[in-house]
Amino acid sequence: MSVTEAETVSVAEWLFAQPALNLSVSENAIEWDNTVALIELMVPGKAEALSYLNSNGSAPLRYAHVVVDHRATTEPYLVDLLVGPLPIQNGTIRYEPLTYPYTKSAGGRVRNLDADSETMSAWFYNISASIADITQELWGGMATGGDEDSLDLWGIDPPWQDDGRIIRWTAFWNLPTSDFDVETLLPLGLYFKADVTGRDPAGWSVEGWFYNGIFYSTTEELRSAFFSPDFVKLPPDEDGLWIQTGQRGPVPPLDTAYPPTMVAPSGSRFFVDEQQQYVKWMDFEFYLGFSRDIGLSLHDIKYKGQRIIYELSLQEAIAHYAGQDPMQSGTAYLDSFYGFGPYAFELVKGYDCPPHATYLNSSFYVRETTHTHTDSICLFEMDAPYPMQRHSTASYVSAAKNVYFTVRTVNTVGNYDYMFSYEFYMDGIIDVNVRASGYIQAAYFANNHDYGHQIHDALSGSMHDHVLNYKIDFDVLGTANTMIATTLVPATETYPLQKPTPVRESIASEDSSRLLWGANGATQYTVVNTDQPNSYGEPRGYRILPSLGTAHLTVQDSSNIVNAANWATHDIYITRQKDSEPRAAHPYNSQDVFDPPVDFAQFFDGRVCCRRIWSFFTTSHSGVQVMPLNYLEGDPSMESVHQVKIEYEAGAVGEVETFGQPESSCQAEWWGYKGDSVVRKFPYAPGEVYYETEDVG
Amino acid sequence: MSVTEAETVSVAEWLFAQPALNLSVSENAIEWDNTVALIELMVPGKAEALSYLNSNGSAPLRYAHVVVDHRATTEPYLVDLLVGPLPIQNGTIRYEPLTYPYTKSAGGRVRNLDADSETMSAWFYNISASIADITQELWGGMATGGDEDSLDLWGIDPPWQDDGRIIRWTAFWNLPTSDFDVETLLPLGLYFKADVTGRDPAGWSVEGWFYNGIFYSTTEELRSAFFSPDFVKLPPDEDGLWIQTGQRGPVPPLDTAYPPTMVAPSGSRFFVDEQQQYVKWMDFEFYLGFSRDIGLSLHDIKYKGQRIIYELSLQEAIAHYAGQDPMQSGTAYLDSFYGFGPYAFELVKGYDCPPHATYLNSSFYVRETTHTHTDSICLFEMDAPYPMQRHSTASYVSAAKNVYFTVRTVNTVGNYDYMFSYEFYMDGIIDVNVRASGYIQAAYFANNHDYGHQIHDALSGSMHDHVLNYKIDFDVLGTANTMIATTLVPATETYPLQKPTPVRESIASEDSSRLLWGANGATQYTVVNTDQPNSYGEPRGYRILPSLGTAHLTVQDSSNIVNAANWATHDIYITRQKDSEPRAAHPYNSQDVFDPPVDFAQFFDGRVCCRRIWSFFTTSHSGVQVMPLNYLEGDPSMESVHQVKIEYEAGAVGEVETFGQPESSCQAEWWGYKGDSVVRKFPYAPGEVYYETEDVG
Repeated sequence: MSVTEAETVSVAEWLFAQPALNLSVSENAIEWDNTVALIELMVPGKAEALSYLNSNGSAPLRYAHVVVDHRATTEPYLVDLLVGPLPIQNGTIRYEPLTYPYTKSAGGRVRNLDADSETMSAWFYNISASIADITQELWGGMATGGDEDSLDLWGIDPPWQDDGRIIRWTAFWNLPTSDFDVETLLPLGLYFKADVTGRDPAGWSVEGWFYNGIFYSTTEELRSAFFSPDFVKLPPDEDGLWIQTGQRGPVPPLDTAYPPTMVAPSGSRFFVDEQQQYVKWMDFEFYLGFSRDIGLSLHDIKYKGQRIIYELSLQEAIAHYAGQDPMQSGTAYLDSFYGFGPYAFELVKGYDCPPHATYLNSSFYVRETTHTHTDSICLFEMDAPYPMQRHSTASYVSAAKNVYFTVRTVNTVGNYDYMFSYEFYMDGIIDVNVRASGYIQAAYFANNHDYGHQIHDALSGSMHDHVLNYKIDFDVLGTANTMIATTLVPATETYPLQKPTPVRESIASEDSSRLLWGANGATQYTVVNTDQPNSYGEPRGYRILPSLGTAHLTVQDSSNIVNAANWATHDIYITRQKDSEPRAAHPYNSQDVFDPPVDFAQFFDGRVCCRRIWSFFTTSHSGVQVMPLNYLEGDPSMESVHQVKIEYEAGAVGEVETFGQPESSCQAEWWGYKGDSVVRKFPYAPGEVYYETEDVG
Repeated sequence: MSVTEAETVSVAEWLFAQPALNLSVSENAIEWDNTVALIELMVPGKAEALSYLNSNGSAPLRYAHVVVDHRATTEPYLVDLLVGPLPIQNGTIRYEPLTYPYTKSAGGRVRNLDADSETMSAWFYNISASIADITQELWGGMATGGDEDSLDLWGIDPPWQDDGRIIRWTAFWNLPTSDFDVETLLPLGLYFKADVTGRDPAGWSVEGWFYNGIFYSTTEELRSAFFSPDFVKLPPDEDGLWIQTGQRGPVPPLDTAYPPTMVAPSGSRFFVDEQQQYVKWMDFEFYLGFSRDIGLSLHDIKYKGQRIIYELSLQEAIAHYAGQDPMQSGTAYLDSFYGFGPYAFELVKGYDCPPHATYLNSSFYVRETTHTHTDSICLFEMDAPYPMQRHSTASYVSAAKNVYFTVRTVNTVGNYDYMFSYEFYMDGIIDVNVRASGYIQAAYFANNHDYGHQIHDALSGSMHDHVLNYKIDFDVLGTANTMIATTLVPATETYPLQKPTPVRESIASEDSSRLLWGANGATQYTVVNTDQPNSYGEPRGYRILPSLGTAHLTVQDSSNIVNAANWATHDIYITRQKDSEPRAAHPYNSQDVFDPPVDFAQFFDGRVCCRRIWSFFTTSHSGVQVMPLNYLEGDPSMESVHQVKIEYEAGAVGEVETFGQPESSCQAEWWGYKGDSVVRKFPYAPGEVYYETEDVG
């Protein structure tokens, strides 16, 4: 599922040979040159792919997906192109705008608000340099864009877009003095507002300043206030041990001894084809995909030989901030703008993944080069710290191990490290979860008491939501799937009919398919194939449920993102699968928030709906699970030999069943299983210990 | 925190010497004799205990808590007694009713509806034997109470209580034919209703029968219908491989190899004083308690030398069923009636707890004997399968291990195994969770389609809630604690003030202290000590939040339990600590559901409130976490040496910092960290691999 090296080279060469594209090599390009932003494989449509996978149809034609950054114009834009078919042959090769994934009618184009980033940066540094006397006095440093700077500038994302104007608020930050990546923890509380509409800096203007809750409409106003006697100067945030990782403080007792660690005595118990990016563990198998926008994705997930999920992939992540200052209230990162693929850093062995993990590389294209992150995807089994099942009685105890399989990648987009895990369990469950680490983007403390806790001298934890959107294209025993919502409605009827009343509802159309989890876990969502009942007449399916908890966006009708993240307002969305809606978002949605390339709300056009699920996560760790429901008869985890049954009576073990598993150090201990020893207290008989043979209570 | 062997013996001997109690030894007792149901240590009041713990006050006097099953009367009752002080000395020793934990005004007494269980069982078997011809024809067996029976009888719990009458619905079940404990999966769908009010069987009567959705008001009616030609006979549920554990079906590929397992190269890194039941791990320390009613409890939990929680203990668990038949709709087990303590079975090494775990025993009193469950509590560290923190940049990566500590016990109350875990983390978090296993109590399939999925030939998954109540008595830097609820209210104001508006509310009185988690995770609950701000003025505290998700009872105003589980209607309750309210429930609440010994609703009497939290869990796995909030300045997990920082540049590692941790097999691999390798594609330069030195995207 990726372009080959030869394909990338040939597509690049062919593109550079097309005079109409007027391309320049990135490292030589200026802001008024066109460049190639991306060359990737275009994922084929599902109909074509299924024909190939299911019916031995011919393999889908291969195309490259190319993005050209078209800046040799007064109206710069990014354009998605389809180039192919591959391999390149004279006569058949051509390029055309890739328009079908767009809900925006713009020929596969979206304006580029960052076309002049270098000019704009220099223009911003002129502004900050113009108050160097103020920054020197406040923080002992300057932001001029030069090497001697101790201050940095950056601002809101996306830029504020309204009435045809582009407004950017820019904040001052202290540069770290250490090598730690802690700048997001060093806000200084001063912000300026600039209108940077258009490409001509002559038309750009400073619109005001904000400090300590006060807005100054000109630089002169700020200056005059600052040098007045009653100006309140607040302290800076400064780098120091307090934000640096590494051992700090008294080492806890026994901490320097080895902690427990996972080992794999038999090595890996799964199969990986690195070339095909194919993985098989126990009864699960699937293919890995990897792209610039969303990083790792999973395809054609089969369980016991039958496809259950056609595609499982991250769609987009938003980090939406809120607060009283213009930086906090203006920030709503849409991370696929930066891309997840380029930030799948090499993993730390033994920390990000257990010591026995297997690693794969990932690659992405940027600026005429292909970059490879070594060991950036890991695969490993774990023995969960609790059994899959167990049951005790007065005569036997049985238990089964809970060994599960994880595919993991970590994408560090700026300050946040997203640890994405896909976990597979012996009972047919797939758990999709994300854990965030890294550094927060903190708020300056001034006047922020209502919006966060003060966490250091001049710093406040910043209020923000992380919401992530995943696509799950279920194919449970074929593509004809239905979503059923079952809600338990509390009822207070009289015995013997007292009961919650379950209400089952099939989600019939996209008019009613934007869903919330519902209060008190009383609603259960299940994707079923009604044509495929099990032998008891129940439709076979998969349930979808929060595992670590999830949430949708707290802010409603955000004016920062307008239509750019309409996938973040609910917990689950159901849409009918359509090849022209491959993704809920587009990396450049932030460039035109009123009319973004992909407005997810436009996917909901009243069609009869089924099968594709988009669900949401948030906060520092959260997850969603898909769980077989009436899919299999019986418990598939019983297939494993990693079970034990100990039969005992009167303090002695009669039999230990181990079901063909290899010997382990615990086996001797199982023969020592005792049960329940008894000493009589009245009449007191301390010497006569005996063993109970039935349940007592 | 338990009576000594000598104390138990002396209390038993002394009780048996009191003529007024008129006690008989259990094994000789008949239904009209008085017996001792329990001898345990009475937990002292908190004021006394704190005086001892904090101020070197004298140790609280020791008393035994005794329960006498008083059946030598026409109105049998169970009575809680306080016996002491201990050790027993003539002149000071006495017993008195233990009344203060009761909300019921009854001198520490509650009626015993099970006083005549043997007589009642025989009476029920007479009824079932009277239709032996029917049971033979339906299921090829009988329920007579004899050894040759293949059928069993048991019914609803609690018995139905209304208008002074006691009504019991009894169901027929197939007895397992194997040694597996699967009877709860073998319902047969026939039920009879009996009025068993009073102690005289002459006053008891059969009130009707229920089969396949039809109610027959007499046995004769049932009989006549059964032998009519149009009677519909439904199949039985029968024991078989389908419900037995053990390896079944094709062994998955590679399953017979050793799976990964946790090892502890340095052995245990924590301290346990078995005598004192004291545990210390890293910066946490606490004492264990154990009782018949609730099993394991945690006391005096200190973190970095300061008490944060005075008591953390299970209070009660309910399993409330619902459905269309009288068994399903009449069942609402209150498990402390059976007790958790007696069912803390010996754990399975390597399955219930990892191979390197440490084990403790637990003991309980029953029928003049003390029973000991060997190795029924385990303690172990785990290295979580994800780091505590990590951060990647283009020049370094840092990560910290997430080693945590677990105390675990499993209580199998009948068919359900509750695995209780208390987990302690290096960042100050305590996670309290429960995972249920064992066998469900399933429903007979007839007419049950609206209430559950059919899961076998004649079996239906039964709709039921598990709700568990825990008490957390927080003492965050002293006892003067306050609960703050912070709710983010979505707001749609105009930029730059677009934000959710946080509303902070102090829970001021018990009139408003029954709380729900709130929609979309937007409400945050925090226990703070407002007298103890940190250096930034934020009150130090602990946040309480669902970790694996929780729910409260779906059924509202249940007529089965009436006032016996008023702790199950909300997610969190806050009450003012009061020594006379030691527990949210009483083991014999089921015996008088209208006026139970402890009606939790009566704890809410408008007092100014603080400090004690009662929270709820449900479903097969769920959990609640308490997390430091503004409690410490800085990140306590940084105290651990189990961190790594790898500095790299241009494909080579410059430095690996390991902070004093012992050498491990990963350390060589860290020196091989590469980062991001690059191959130029245009102009194509395949031979020249180089390494990226800054973030690209």
